[in-house]
Amino acid sequence: MDVSLGLQCPIPISDYPTITLAHGGGGKLSQMLVERMFVPAFANSELEALHDGAVIDFGFRISDFGLTEPNRQSEIGNPKLAFSTDSYVIHPRFFPGGDIGSLAIHGTVNDLAMCGARPLYLSAGFILEEGLPMDELWRIVQSMAAAAAAAGVRIVTGDTKVVERGKGDGIFINTAGIGAIPSGIRISPKRARPGDVVLINGPIASHGIAIMSVREGLEFETTLESDSAALNGLVADILEAGGEAVHVLRDPTRGGVASSLNEIAAQARVGFLLDEASIPIQEEVRGACEILGFDPLYVANEGKCLVIVAREAADALLTAMRGHPLGRETAVIGEVVAERPGKVFLRSRIGGLRVVDMLSGEQLPRIC
Amino acid sequence: MDVSLGLQCPIPISDYPTITLAHGGGGKLSQMLVERMFVPAFANSELEALHDGAVIDFGFRISDFGLTEPNRQSEIGNPKLAFSTDSYVIHPRFFPGGDIGSLAIHGTVNDLAMCGARPLYLSAGFILEEGLPMDELWRIVQSMAAAAAAAGVRIVTGDTKVVERGKGDGIFINTAGIGAIPSGIRISPKRARPGDVVLINGPIASHGIAIMSVREGLEFETTLESDSAALNGLVADILEAGGEAVHVLRDPTRGGVASSLNEIAAQARVGFLLDEASIPIQEEVRGACEILGFDPLYVANEGKCLVIVAREAADALLTAMRGHPLGRETAVIGEVVAERPGKVFLRSRIGGLRVVDMLSGEQLPRIC
Repeated sequence: MDVSLGLQCPIPISDYPTITLAHGGGGKLSQMLVERMFVPAFANSELEALHDGAVIDFGFRISDFGLTEPNRQSEIGNPKLAFSTDSYVIHPRFFPGGDIGSLAIHGTVNDLAMCGARPLYLSAGFILEEGLPMDELWRIVQSMAAAAAAAGVRIVTGDTKVVERGKGDGIFINTAGIGAIPSGIRISPKRARPGDVVLINGPIASHGIAIMSVREGLEFETTLESDSAALNGLVADILEAGGEAVHVLRDPTRGGVASSLNEIAAQARVGFLLDEASIPIQEEVRGACEILGFDPLYVANEGKCLVIVAREAADALLTAMRGHPLGRETAVIGEVVAERPGKVFLRSRIGGLRVVDMLSGEQLPRIC
Repeated sequence: MDVSLGLQCPIPISDYPTITLAHGGGGKLSQMLVERMFVPAFANSELEALHDGAVIDFGFRISDFGLTEPNRQSEIGNPKLAFSTDSYVIHPRFFPGGDIGSLAIHGTVNDLAMCGARPLYLSAGFILEEGLPMDELWRIVQSMAAAAAAAGVRIVTGDTKVVERGKGDGIFINTAGIGAIPSGIRISPKRARPGDVVLINGPIASHGIAIMSVREGLEFETTLESDSAALNGLVADILEAGGEAVHVLRDPTRGGVASSLNEIAAQARVGFLLDEASIPIQEEVRGACEILGFDPLYVANEGKCLVIVAREAADALLTAMRGHPLGRETAVIGEVVAERPGKVFLRSRIGGLRVVDMLSGEQLPRIC
C-alpha cells in the first residue's frame, strides 16, 4: 500500500532527535509522544473523545446483525467493552513479590478495572530473545497462568516471536485485554469535580522500590516486596459500595501518584490538594526512597488504585474498601479543589504547601 | 501473589535448554512451544476447544446486563467477537512494499478476517530502543495510520515502553485486534472436508523473498515487493459469494502455504493434494527462491489467503475473488482428500507425488 509520508514530525527533531528512556517513563516526554504523535496520527473525532490517559474504553451498539457502530452514549441496556494493552519489559524478570509474567496479567487486568470494566479475556504476545533459558520461560508461563486464574480472566489468544541474541532482553510480554463495563457505570477522569475525595487502597511506592532494591543490591531487615496484584475484585467492591458516586479510578503505575493525579487534574480541569501525613507508605520504603533520592509520590505502584468519589459516599466507600484484603490500609489522602485547575498541591507534614508537578525525565527505567 | 512453581517443564530441557530462532519460525518447534507449553498452561476446557491455530475466536452471550458468559454455540442473533494478537519484529523495518508499521496493521487485520470477522478495533503496543531516530518512528506511525484508515479499523488504545540501547532492536510493535463475526458465519480449520477445493488469491512467497532480497542485497530487474495487504475487503467478498460453503480461511504467513495446510490437515484430520503447476508464483520470485535455496511453499506471505470451499461453490467463488483488486490472480491450487489424513501431498509439474511436511527449523528469522 502506498503511504503518504513526509508530513513534518510533530516532535521537534532538533530537541529530540532520538527516542530516550524518558519517552517511556510515564512523565512529560511520554505524554508529549502520546499527545503530539500517536493521538493525532491515529485519532478521528470519535477517538479524540475516547482518549483518557493510557486506557481507552469504547462501546458497541448491539444489533441482531452483529456489533456495528461504536456508541459512546451510556445507554442503559447497551453493554460497553473496555479494551487495553500494555507491553512489559521489566528488569529484572523475577523480583520480590512477582515476575514479568504475573505483572503482565495484573497490569492489564488493572487497566481494564480502572475503566470500571470486568476483565474477561486477555491476549499474550511474547518477544523472546534467542538463548532465553527454557525453564525461565516455563516459570514465567506458570506464573501468568496462576495470576490469570486468580484474577478470573482467560488467556484466549497469543503469539510468539524470537529475535536474535543481542536484539532483545530475554523476554518482553504484551498483553491486551477485553472487559465488559456493566450498564450504569461511568468512570472517567473528566468526572473528577471539586469537593470529591481522593482515596488510595494502601501504602505507595512498594513496586518501584522493590525493583530498585534488587537492582542496587540494597539490603533491608525485611524483603521489600512489590505490591503487584490484580485489583478487579477490589474494584467490584468499590463499584458496589460507591455506585455512581465513584467518579474516577486510576492505577498509579509509571510516574506514580503524582503523575496520575496531574493527568486527571489536566483532563478534568480541577486542582488536587493532598495531605502528606495521610498518604500511607511503609517505613522501610520511605527509608529506601531517602537513600535513593526518590520522591515516593513519583515511584511506580502495581497494586494500587486511586479512587475519586463524591464526598457524601466517601465514608461508606472507605469502610467497604477496608473490608477487602487488598484494601485494609485504605486512606483518604486528599481532595479535589476548584482552585488552580490542572495543578496538584501537597500540604506537607509541617504545614507548607508545594506544587507536585508531572514527572520530568526518567526516574527509573523498565519498572513495568 | 504466590505462584506454585516447580511443575516439570513440558519441553524437554535436555533437548531444548534455551529458546532458539526456530521457536519463533512458524514450524515444528513453534508448534511444540504452543501446544506443549502455552496451551496446557493457559487452557481450560473452553479454551481447548477454541484453539484453532494462531487465531482464536470466541463468542459472547449478550444480555441486557452486559456481556456475561462465553458462548461457543453459533446462535443466530448472538454476535461473536474475534480477538487476536501479533507482535512484529521484522528486520529491516522498511522494505519494498511496506514497513513494520503497515505490516503490524495488515497482519492483525488479516488474522481477524481469517476468523470470518469484520475487524473493528486495534491496540498498538510499542517497544522502542533508546536511540531510535524520532523521524523513523514518525514515518512508521504515519504508515500505521494510513494502513488502518485504508483497512477501516481504528487504533483505540496503546502503550509505549523504551528499553536501553542494546536491549531491543529499534522498534517492536504489538497489535491486538477485535472484530465482529456476523451471524451465520462459521469459519474453522476443522470444517475442511474431503472434496473441498483449495484456492489462493494470488502468487505466493513475495513477502519472504522481498525481505530476503533486501537483507542479502540481491538485485533483480524489477524490485521484488512484499504482498503485505489488508485482506478484510477481499474476505467480505468471499463470504458474500460463498456463504456457508466457505469452510476455512487461513493466511499463510510464517512457514508459508506448506505449514498452514499441514496445520489444517492435522486439525481437520484430512489430507491435501496440491497441484504444483497451478500454484501461482512470480517468475522472479521463483528465480530468487532457486538462488537462495528456498522452497516457495515455505516462504511467508502477508497478503495471501487460502480459501477452502465446498466444491459446488468453487466456481462462483473464483469469479468473485478475481473481481477484487487483491484477487485478480486467484487460482485453484488443490483439493481436500480423505486419504492420508494429516498429510499434504504435492503433484509436481512432471507428475511425481511428494509429501510436503511441516517446516522444521527456522527458514528465515524475523520475517514479520
